[in-house]
Amino acid sequence: MKTSMASQSPSQSTKAHAFVELQRRIIEIESPICLGIDPSHKTLPRFLYDDARRQGASEELALEEALVAFASALLRAANGLAAVCKPQIAYFEAFGIPGLKAFQRILKLAHEAGFLAIADVKRGDIGSTSKAYADAFLGETQGFKSKRQRAFEADFVTLHPYMSDDSVLPFLETALEYGRGCFVLARTSNPSAANFQSLRLDDGRQVMDVIADHIERWGESSRDRQYGLSAVGAVVGATCPEEARRMRQRMPHSFFLIPGYGAQGGVASDAVAGFREDGLGAVVNASRSIANAYQKHGLAIEDFERAARLEMIEMREKIGDALRHHV
Amino acid sequence: MKTSMASQSPSQSTKAHAFVELQRRIIEIESPICLGIDPSHKTLPRFLYDDARRQGASEELALEEALVAFASALLRAANGLAAVCKPQIAYFEAFGIPGLKAFQRILKLAHEAGFLAIADVKRGDIGSTSKAYADAFLGETQGFKSKRQRAFEADFVTLHPYMSDDSVLPFLETALEYGRGCFVLARTSNPSAANFQSLRLDDGRQVMDVIADHIERWGESSRDRQYGLSAVGAVVGATCPEEARRMRQRMPHSFFLIPGYGAQGGVASDAVAGFREDGLGAVVNASRSIANAYQKHGLAIEDFERAARLEMIEMREKIGDALRHHV
Repeated sequence: MKTSMASQSPSQSTKAHAFVELQRRIIEIESPICLGIDPSHKTLPRFLYDDARRQGASEELALEEALVAFASALLRAANGLAAVCKPQIAYFEAFGIPGLKAFQRILKLAHEAGFLAIADVKRGDIGSTSKAYADAFLGETQGFKSKRQRAFEADFVTLHPYMSDDSVLPFLETALEYGRGCFVLARTSNPSAANFQSLRLDDGRQVMDVIADHIERWGESSRDRQYGLSAVGAVVGATCPEEARRMRQRMPHSFFLIPGYGAQGGVASDAVAGFREDGLGAVVNASRSIANAYQKHGLAIEDFERAARLEMIEMREKIGDALRHHV
Repeated sequence: MKTSMASQSPSQSTKAHAFVELQRRIIEIESPICLGIDPSHKTLPRFLYDDARRQGASEELALEEALVAFASALLRAANGLAAVCKPQIAYFEAFGIPGLKAFQRILKLAHEAGFLAIADVKRGDIGSTSKAYADAFLGETQGFKSKRQRAFEADFVTLHPYMSDDSVLPFLETALEYGRGCFVLARTSNPSAANFQSLRLDDGRQVMDVIADHIERWGESSRDRQYGLSAVGAVVGATCPEEARRMRQRMPHSFFLIPGYGAQGGVASDAVAGFREDGLGAVVNASRSIANAYQKHGLAIEDFERAARLEMIEMREKIGDALRHHV
């Protein structure tokens, strides 16, 4: 299988993939934080919607504007504290077309404000369908229009591994063509993650180990010279430090997206378990704990932007401290 | 684990889930076909776009109209031959917002034309995010608007199992609340499916067997009295008949969505391997082989609707024959 896998990997890319730029920026700001943007109907501040309505927007447009204003405020708060943001598409799809218009605008806005952007879409399908998704989020599409266009301007997407090569390689090929990247779910942060991911195989490995070995091989030919990072990253939760250490050993060349910090219960010392020994190769995501920090800081919801900044400053310190003790 | 799983399942529903209605309609038309709607830029007929442009539509609107016209034609062709359709969202996302507007309209149109609709979105995430997706495709959302609305009017969604309970139970709860259903990927039809799905565990089972056992348990409390179908269906490919038979044994109460017929290489005798002995409990999907049937029938692309109907008539006959030999 190793041979056939290697032969299916795209050949060495000439254009640097986006993990190189992401690592460079993280080093520059000394903060491996990913700003999650999850505007659920509980998290999205109502006053943003009311503001838009007062300015004459229809209900649909006011929703779109509120979502964009929410993300804009969080991006301002994250200036110099996060190199990358991660809007979760579920919270936009739940609002229908206005939500998806906002999702599209937020990706653009993030780039204009100097952030890289992960579209947290967790896709994965048969080859032809994965190619359509890859075009949508990482590449370009034309249809019959006069010029090629980007549908959704992401630098990275998140992917489900269950269907294997057919679900990942079309994204990898598109990522290498356009200088982008992808993250494959390896060990997720949710309570029921272990049900399938920790199943023990007859050769002693767990399912997540096999996925990890595939991720390492899928990315083999795309490693960059400066940081040794491949174009295939991995999602490894902040809630499972022992497994994160094992995942790091099996995937020395993958950049890790580490969700589960904050609202999901992961603390800084656990969150850094998946970092490389040199303190590189990973980013810790927080979403709800940042957007809802005004509650913790005893501030009004109108001050959520300021509270989000305070929360990210604190998060950067905690993760920095934990990294200094990380071996 | 069995005990904790059972306690996490929603209690017996009072509203019939959508698999009951789907089974009833399949029996009525004597045709277990699912019409896949996959308008890739290669499949979508250019003349539909040109027609819309000639009528003065902008490039964006013409694309939306072409996608809707494509689906409308296929739905007309499927009248009395398919009880359910399955638009694959990747092909709509690739066209950006006009694509997603078309996706939304096509789900509505399908219902108006008397079809049930599967949103083939293959979602799956942590609990709070899965709930947002479930609201988007099976339930309702309100945001701050004056009334609750459906974002995307599907009767069923497809789901990735990798994150387990957290990925499935929020959809199941929403499905039971609104009388809908979900399909979880068990054994997919793509060439690399076996890489992870067939991994052998230390207890002798394969990964797909464990997923199947979970699907059977997740659905346990939602079985209907007439057909014995649960609200948790399974995706089992037409390209793996031996495994489909095993999947049927492990999931006697799940409705199967069987992709891979036609363009992906599955033939009728293989496709029916996952049906119950009474010939019920499954639907065979075809997408490209229906939309592109004009080529096989030596017709012009302008006749794709007529060719699609011929193809579905032939498909119904072949599957009917195969079912008569199915034990």
